[in-house]
Amino acid sequence: MNAALGELRQRLGEITDLVRIQSLQYWDLEVWMPPRGQDARASQLATLEAIIHARQIDERIGELVEELEPHAASLPYDSDDACLVRAARRDWEKLRRIPNELATELARAGAESYQAWVSAREESRFETFRPHLERMLELKLRLVECFAPYDDPYDVLLDDFEEGMRTDEVRAIFARLQPEITALVAEHAATTDEDDFLRGPFSVPQQELLSRELIGRFGASWDAWRLDLTVHPFAVPFGPGDIRLTTRYSETDLNSLFTAMHECGHGLYEYGVSPSLDRTPLGTGASSALHESQSRLWENVVGRSLPFWRWFYPRLQDAFAEQLGEVSVERFHRAVNRAQRGFIRVDADETTYGLHVILRFELEQELVAGRLAVKDLPEAWNARFFELMGLEVPNDRLGVLQDSHWAGGSFGYFPTYLLGSVLSVQIWEKALEALPDLDEQMERGDFAELHAWLRENVYALGRKLTPAETIDRVVGGPIDPEPYLAYLRGKLSALAAA
Amino acid sequence: MNAALGELRQRLGEITDLVRIQSLQYWDLEVWMPPRGQDARASQLATLEAIIHARQIDERIGELVEELEPHAASLPYDSDDACLVRAARRDWEKLRRIPNELATELARAGAESYQAWVSAREESRFETFRPHLERMLELKLRLVECFAPYDDPYDVLLDDFEEGMRTDEVRAIFARLQPEITALVAEHAATTDEDDFLRGPFSVPQQELLSRELIGRFGASWDAWRLDLTVHPFAVPFGPGDIRLTTRYSETDLNSLFTAMHECGHGLYEYGVSPSLDRTPLGTGASSALHESQSRLWENVVGRSLPFWRWFYPRLQDAFAEQLGEVSVERFHRAVNRAQRGFIRVDADETTYGLHVILRFELEQELVAGRLAVKDLPEAWNARFFELMGLEVPNDRLGVLQDSHWAGGSFGYFPTYLLGSVLSVQIWEKALEALPDLDEQMERGDFAELHAWLRENVYALGRKLTPAETIDRVVGGPIDPEPYLAYLRGKLSALAAA
Repeated sequence: MNAALGELRQRLGEITDLVRIQSLQYWDLEVWMPPRGQDARASQLATLEAIIHARQIDERIGELVEELEPHAASLPYDSDDACLVRAARRDWEKLRRIPNELATELARAGAESYQAWVSAREESRFETFRPHLERMLELKLRLVECFAPYDDPYDVLLDDFEEGMRTDEVRAIFARLQPEITALVAEHAATTDEDDFLRGPFSVPQQELLSRELIGRFGASWDAWRLDLTVHPFAVPFGPGDIRLTTRYSETDLNSLFTAMHECGHGLYEYGVSPSLDRTPLGTGASSALHESQSRLWENVVGRSLPFWRWFYPRLQDAFAEQLGEVSVERFHRAVNRAQRGFIRVDADETTYGLHVILRFELEQELVAGRLAVKDLPEAWNARFFELMGLEVPNDRLGVLQDSHWAGGSFGYFPTYLLGSVLSVQIWEKALEALPDLDEQMERGDFAELHAWLRENVYALGRKLTPAETIDRVVGGPIDPEPYLAYLRGKLSALAAA
Repeated sequence: MNAALGELRQRLGEITDLVRIQSLQYWDLEVWMPPRGQDARASQLATLEAIIHARQIDERIGELVEELEPHAASLPYDSDDACLVRAARRDWEKLRRIPNELATELARAGAESYQAWVSAREESRFETFRPHLERMLELKLRLVECFAPYDDPYDVLLDDFEEGMRTDEVRAIFARLQPEITALVAEHAATTDEDDFLRGPFSVPQQELLSRELIGRFGASWDAWRLDLTVHPFAVPFGPGDIRLTTRYSETDLNSLFTAMHECGHGLYEYGVSPSLDRTPLGTGASSALHESQSRLWENVVGRSLPFWRWFYPRLQDAFAEQLGEVSVERFHRAVNRAQRGFIRVDADETTYGLHVILRFELEQELVAGRLAVKDLPEAWNARFFELMGLEVPNDRLGVLQDSHWAGGSFGYFPTYLLGSVLSVQIWEKALEALPDLDEQMERGDFAELHAWLRENVYALGRKLTPAETIDRVVGGPIDPEPYLAYLRGKLSALAAA
């Protein structure tokens, strides 16, 4: 039994190494690679993916799991070994349905497509990106067919990010959220602009300094973390002591602070996984929605709260005395929470954000179901955006080309952002039960107890349990949109009354 | 035949991909990785090396080569395919002598050892590095034994950098060089310092700008090249359109300009390999000495020449008017060529540089022969350094800890620097035959014809021929120290007379 477990752990450990090596390849592609490095990189990613996938579906893993299952069943359900055997079984069963050639081709096409997206976005020209997106969608549809029969083709894609969740569950949650959010936006969206002080100019080096200071206080430790620049911000771990965040800066707003807090939330999750799970498929976050619950919690529930700004705002005023010296903390807090219709998802306020996600979720389903062709996507985007937000999209850069997800083939990711927002409030309520003076702690700039509570109750678990099991363990029930709606309503009413 | 060739090319192409992936792992380790990323990175490097090595020694490669050799023999000797089959045979025969476990362990230990070296150098504390160096040496000695019987154990290590060259050949060349260089240094080394203007301060951003401008003029193209910062500068390609150089800056000297030109030489070599050789084991420089011939050519034969500075010095004076405004180009040129005894190899002038290399070559041989223990290395270094240079080494940072090579297990690399200097002059003489007005071109800041000549006559060949064959093809004979000595003598006499 020990021999089998040892062999399984070794095989999964090597796969983990290779996946992290692949992550570095992608990270470098987005952060540093010169444009003409693209062909060689696409070839490298394809070669590596072929090796990873072949190892993931190796028959020997199936044999070892088979051998270990009786032993695992005799262990406590949430022991590391029992969880490892269960996850290994699920991953192996799932991945072996995918032909190696398809997995490889997805890696190659994704790298090529990413570069095309960067150019297309820069030129604001969808046509540059279109053939690549068509290719990615075609490959993804071939992937979907590997899992036939299915209730909904989108289920297959969603499963890569939110294992076990069904599209109709997401639809039900979003159906509850959408009219409420739309009503909140209608009620609270600013008709006139009183927030000129948020337009800067804010020096980029100062923004970087503040970003680092902030997330350092949250728990990022610079002997194990990095913060670099990309077109589209993200977070990725290469090991328990190597957490990479990326961000971007604009002189004309302070969004970089929220981006840094968002990516820091992802980083803290990975950083907090129990060391006993390292180099196993359990040594990472449980799902995208759980991951987004942490990015959104640190970005919004913490980072757009009044207690937080009571602590940090004087520091911000020091840095930008000219722009903010005369602006009170209450006014600043109101401004960064104002419901405001805008084009860019990642720059959206907490309330309208949900509408951006719902738009993408709907379009993805139509693409996957074949009801919408890629060539008609910009038009469909703009039309639906107008319905949801009441704004005419002026160009593709501010519309369909703004996000990198589809370029990399990540269809099915978007809904997890809003699910994450929903979950973040459920988790926050649990944290508040344990730490009733959280507001006072934040006003002192003290995040140690919050970080410790989250680490102990969420992060340490890693991927030991399924997403649904993890959520149940943390919040004592399923995903529930009501606390999130109550939180939004409460916050906006308080701001309106102030 | 076509099928066999296709399969061989595919296998070698995938190995090339994996080696470049590994190069990115090492590059990131030195450029960006936070210190606590070390354990995960060492594990990743070991896992990847095990895969690469297993593929390199796959029996199937031997079978394919066997099948293709008659066909290859019927082709012109220097046709791509004939060269590919020959190199594949040599690489396969060589690498299969090394057990996979040893190759893997070398990769893991090298990564760990590199980090220990960085810390040890920072603290100037050899003891921090000692156990790692002992481990690397022990592993390297196990590697040497894989190639028994041998004439000289050092031959085995040298072969990794200068395939086919024997230690006694190097010794003979160095025996000719050492007394001559020592005499030149004794005659020309400055006893008093007249070069205070070289001490700065020189703003680092300005140095970076100048470095980029310079190597851009040499042929670096920023859509395919990068220049980043490391403790120890190096150059590495990840593909024909992805050339990475690293450098370092100090406010108190202008060495960064020479470092940039040096690494650019390496980069131009890789950048100029014939595209038909990409993704094969021939798609890289022919050997370390040939590589260093190019780094040293651009750094010294070009970069320390008076015509070059007649072009670039006004630009330098613009950037550093306060320090250099009153200094003539002749005086500046004399200063950057002054033979001056110093501690750091990479900061050495062109003449004393050879003595730094000879020191390392001798110590390496003693370590490998077991005549010198690692624990006694600092003492041996300092004693031998005093003999060669007449200087007391004040600390290990300025002594035995200055170079990263041994940390990574690169015993046998050092002699190729001096062989490269020797070769650079032989190659320069050939270039001058073809382009008699090179001096005038350099005075105009025009390096296009030189770059084109080198690309056509050296770079494009890649590794199609053995190092000795390549050298013979380029300069019409073997490595010969006489032109180099004549060049040094001529340069120093002219400077002394001026």
